[in-house]
Amino acid sequence: MKTFSIAKSRRLRSTPYTSRIEKQGVTAYTTYNHMLLPAAFGSLEDSYHHLKKNVQIWDVAGERQVEVRGKDSAKLVQMMTCRDLSKSKNGRCYYCPIIDDDAGIINDPVVLRLSEDRWWISIADSDVILFAKGLAIGNKFDVKIFEPNVDIMAIQGPKSFGLMEKIFGEKITNLKFFGFDYFDFKGTKHLIARSGWSKQGGYEIYVENTKSGLELYDRLFEIGKEFNVKPGCPNLIERIESGLLSYGNDMDLYDNPYECGFDKYVNLDSDVSFLGKDKLKKIKAEGINRKLMGLIIDANEISMTKSLDVKDENNNVIGELRSACFSPHFNKVIGIAMINKPFYTPSQNVKVDINGNICNGKVCDLPFI
Amino acid sequence: MKTFSIAKSRRLRSTPYTSRIEKQGVTAYTTYNHMLLPAAFGSLEDSYHHLKKNVQIWDVAGERQVEVRGKDSAKLVQMMTCRDLSKSKNGRCYYCPIIDDDAGIINDPVVLRLSEDRWWISIADSDVILFAKGLAIGNKFDVKIFEPNVDIMAIQGPKSFGLMEKIFGEKITNLKFFGFDYFDFKGTKHLIARSGWSKQGGYEIYVENTKSGLELYDRLFEIGKEFNVKPGCPNLIERIESGLLSYGNDMDLYDNPYECGFDKYVNLDSDVSFLGKDKLKKIKAEGINRKLMGLIIDANEISMTKSLDVKDENNNVIGELRSACFSPHFNKVIGIAMINKPFYTPSQNVKVDINGNICNGKVCDLPFI
Repeated sequence: MKTFSIAKSRRLRSTPYTSRIEKQGVTAYTTYNHMLLPAAFGSLEDSYHHLKKNVQIWDVAGERQVEVRGKDSAKLVQMMTCRDLSKSKNGRCYYCPIIDDDAGIINDPVVLRLSEDRWWISIADSDVILFAKGLAIGNKFDVKIFEPNVDIMAIQGPKSFGLMEKIFGEKITNLKFFGFDYFDFKGTKHLIARSGWSKQGGYEIYVENTKSGLELYDRLFEIGKEFNVKPGCPNLIERIESGLLSYGNDMDLYDNPYECGFDKYVNLDSDVSFLGKDKLKKIKAEGINRKLMGLIIDANEISMTKSLDVKDENNNVIGELRSACFSPHFNKVIGIAMINKPFYTPSQNVKVDINGNICNGKVCDLPFI
Repeated sequence: MKTFSIAKSRRLRSTPYTSRIEKQGVTAYTTYNHMLLPAAFGSLEDSYHHLKKNVQIWDVAGERQVEVRGKDSAKLVQMMTCRDLSKSKNGRCYYCPIIDDDAGIINDPVVLRLSEDRWWISIADSDVILFAKGLAIGNKFDVKIFEPNVDIMAIQGPKSFGLMEKIFGEKITNLKFFGFDYFDFKGTKHLIARSGWSKQGGYEIYVENTKSGLELYDRLFEIGKEFNVKPGCPNLIERIESGLLSYGNDMDLYDNPYECGFDKYVNLDSDVSFLGKDKLKKIKAEGINRKLMGLIIDANEISMTKSLDVKDENNNVIGELRSACFSPHFNKVIGIAMINKPFYTPSQNVKVDINGNICNGKVCDLPFI
């Protein structure tokens, strides 16, 4: 496939780590929240194998924070998500689909409750800050909304635990999944969560003190030698195999949470009020007409730049493939597709045209592994 | 400078023209409203010279539309901009800074009044749709807000008038600057505005009927041969020389309209109510502390990926350079910079560190030409 260069400018913001990853061999970027997000350090497949066995440091500063603080902050955050946050606790992360009044998905962030009146919404790629500002202004809420100076670096892979323990001590190994706390590095406190956009385990460091964060970045690579550390980035293959959805790729404003399998994050029976609740009740009562499913396709390679039609055996379009890659685990192409009713059942046979080759495949449940 | 490839995916949406421009020699992309926007077809300077003498066809589908329709649409659009739209007319485009309640700039779109209760906001790179949705929900406005299927192609350059007349007849030459109307191409009506993101003259075709639009695209290149037509894209050099500001590059949420020289689009004396009006009155009364100005720098090349410090003769930081290029017209580097008070006066001497070379320059008014 032809490659094209990315034209950099201030508008595609660099991160504090950009100059480092460029020395370390980044080869491709995507953009994420108006920021450069590394997308490859050479071969995706090599990086995938490395991530599953070792530890990687990722520049994911593009996962920007929307900070909401003030008297009405809890009310505003709850208004934006169909997940009941009334029993949420300080020091915990919550995966929260943000939806509009028509139940269309605006973002699928992780929400961090810093305190009862201070929240970080750690966003996927859309300007949630503008939605929050619009709602707050329209409702005359007493809140401050802004993007704080936070640049996340992620430590991912099975050896991340050993590496982080060497730097932060045993205490960090007690952090539970989706918990966060503050940890000291040479006198500077860093908020660290046990989280990250892979299923290989690890941490995300929410760097507010840039100077200390860069020192920590360098230290992680120094200490990391014995753990075979490498620079990396969210890996297309690993995230698809693990069924981690990507906003903008797998779902968008024109999909609702039930279509995306977010049933457990839709709390219709709670008393809390949020946007789109009535619409979600209606969708639940009537049932969905399509659903995000996995596809396993008899093919050896794919490079997607936009959706591909998914057809049944009679060549009727029954859905669209939205993300896909060659999976070393399955030795086939796997992908995430929005499939129409009644075809969204496992084992449904499908056909996909990959570069002029009509390939056979089957629908399956997500996640793949 | 090292180049990096762009990692394509559905999230960085392709346009209907993408497959064509890739055959026609696009070499670099940026992203704009979650969409691919061509940034170069080989040499920027060759393209600049061509644009100033001939005609180019641009894929600027990334300039997405936010459609606002319904009973309260005029109220909502007015709420978002400090420009008085109470006397606006159907069939006209209006350059309208969109600001929040703190007078921070959210976007600088061109607003098209299709009718009293139907508007298109032709946006720069931020999710205005989310701001509009938040405001509409919070204020319980009776409006529909969505992104219509519109993919703009721009016809730019002095020969655009001749080319467009050959296809659409004499009627199109009567269109005044920032006026729009519907024009027929083989039985399909296309909304065409006399506008575009260059100062070389031309049109923007708001393509709703994709099939007809692609036929028109091909026809423009066919008929265009005699006008020396080429594919192109917004040109960094031309737009800086012309003083066309770029949201995200030259200004953002942390700047206000007065700092950006938008005085004539701030209508504080009118009766209309809009967000940030009180804040703007306060800023006007107190005066601004910094301003976007031009810089002319004694240097032969620059390639900016982020802001650069602007210093005075005593090495004090007095501002930041946000966009810059080598200008063939001035035979120097020119750029757009936010300069602090009292240094934002023409002829102020400045220094900028370009790749380790301390270069001398002077502040000047915008536009350069």
